[in-house]
Amino acid sequence: MPVVIIHMLSGRSSEMKRKLIKKVTDAVVDSLNVKPESVRVIINEVDKENFAVAGLPIEEYRAKNGLSKVKSKNK
Amino acid sequence: MPVVIIHMLSGRSSEMKRKLIKKVTDAVVDSLNVKPESVRVIINEVDKENFAVAGLPIEEYRAKNGLSKVKSKNK
Amino acid sequence: MPVVIIHMLSGRSSEMKRKLIKKVTDAVVDSLNVKPESVRVIINEVDKENFAVAGLPIEEYRAKNGLSKVKSKNK
Amino acid sequence: MPVVIIHMLSGRSSEMKRKLIKKVTDAVVDSLNVKPESVRVIINEVDKENFAVAGLPIEEYRAKNGLSKVKSKNK
Amino acid sequence: MPVVIIHMLSGRSSEMKRKLIKKVTDAVVDSLNVKPESVRVIINEVDKENFAVAGLPIEEYRAKNGLSKVKSKNK
Amino acid sequence: MPVVIIHMLSGRSSEMKRKLIKKVTDAVVDSLNVKPESVRVIINEVDKENFAVAGLPIEEYRAKNGLSKVKSKNK
Repeated sequence: MPVVIIHMLSGRSSEMKRKLIKKVTDAVVDSLNVKPESVRVIINEVDKENFAVAGLPIEEYRAKNGLSKVKSKNK
Repeated sequence: MPVVIIHMLSGRSSEMKRKLIKKVTDAVVDSLNVKPESVRVIINEVDKENFAVAGLPIEEYRAKNGLSKVKSKNK
Repeated sequence: MPVVIIHMLSGRSSEMKRKLIKKVTDAVVDSLNVKPESVRVIINEVDKENFAVAGLPIEEYRAKNGLSKVKSKNK
Repeated sequence: MPVVIIHMLSGRSSEMKRKLIKKVTDAVVDSLNVKPESVRVIINEVDKENFAVAGLPIEEYRAKNGLSKVKSKNK
Repeated sequence: MPVVIIHMLSGRSSEMKRKLIKKVTDAVVDSLNVKPESVRVIINEVDKENFAVAGLPIEEYRAKNGLSKVKSKNK
Repeated sequence: MPVVIIHMLSGRSSEMKRKLIKKVTDAVVDSLNVKPESVRVIINEVDKENFAVAGLPIEEYRAKNGLSKVKSKNK
């Protein structure tokens, strides 16, 4: 009966979130050997100014440290 | 001092949420024998595409399994 | 498909927790008009030194303010 | 690697949230002696009708008990 | 910078939890195209009497409905 | 009425947690201009094997990357 809550930056496409839901559910089913219907996934989309690392909103933290996401320029 | 966080699909009426808050608080007060003022309830409204069962967004899961809510057609 | 997470002080009896689960579920079912099987309740039991009000662990806060729980001396 | 999730009423200014993020991160770093980069803060902004005390939405609870916030009239 | 919190029944082996952590992280990385180091996973292990479906502690719910887990008899 | 939930590795001393509670509460009060009694802090202590970064339990992640905590060898 696992409940998975994913806190992540808002702005991802519906398609990306569908993929996330499917892959995370499969990961839980495979690892814990439970039925797919028993797994719930809740995505909590967080605005950029509400997500912080090292005391800075995420965008400032990335700018300050010259960080970007992996490969493609997705949100 | 209980803190109750309710993750649920967005779209319910204010009236329905008021009723939920009242009833859940009463349930906690009655069961744990605590003062009403000590109970906090936080409703986290989740968009349909962010709430998933069995690897599918909730609406697809319901459509796929011919499921509906109880009785009336509330959200 | 509501998921209810209840953060509360540890130490309640199994019987008290069963009552809490039943009453909170009924409250959600009655208010949101959803099926009982769609409601999940998770109790997160918190040690007294990990639950704080006004910057003090709960027991010190109560002692400092001469507070006690409602009626009977439950935990 | 602390993760701090702050549930609070929506409506605060960006400036206020930046200050909150910075001060809470500093508090965690000072208390737990961890690196700032290891601390994540997530603000969950809650609508007034979704935040309840004593079975009432927060604004009604305050009105009923003649409560206001500290000093200035911020949200 | 996703933070994934997994609420699940306590009692799984360390090995099973390692597998869960790895697979869920990979699922998030693949779906959201983020760096592995940016993903945090927190497992919240819940005692059976603190995890409820349809108003009943999970074991009673399963017994009442003749339910078991998938395939093997893991916890 | 902020509710702050801090997910952190288990094993810190009571004294350290008291300091954390006090400092975080002060940070919230100062930033949001709210009354101390309105602030709740809940510490969720997480076992090392249940806290993961980059798909690895925290201790392995640190060992693999030659990471340690800040200055003193606190837990």
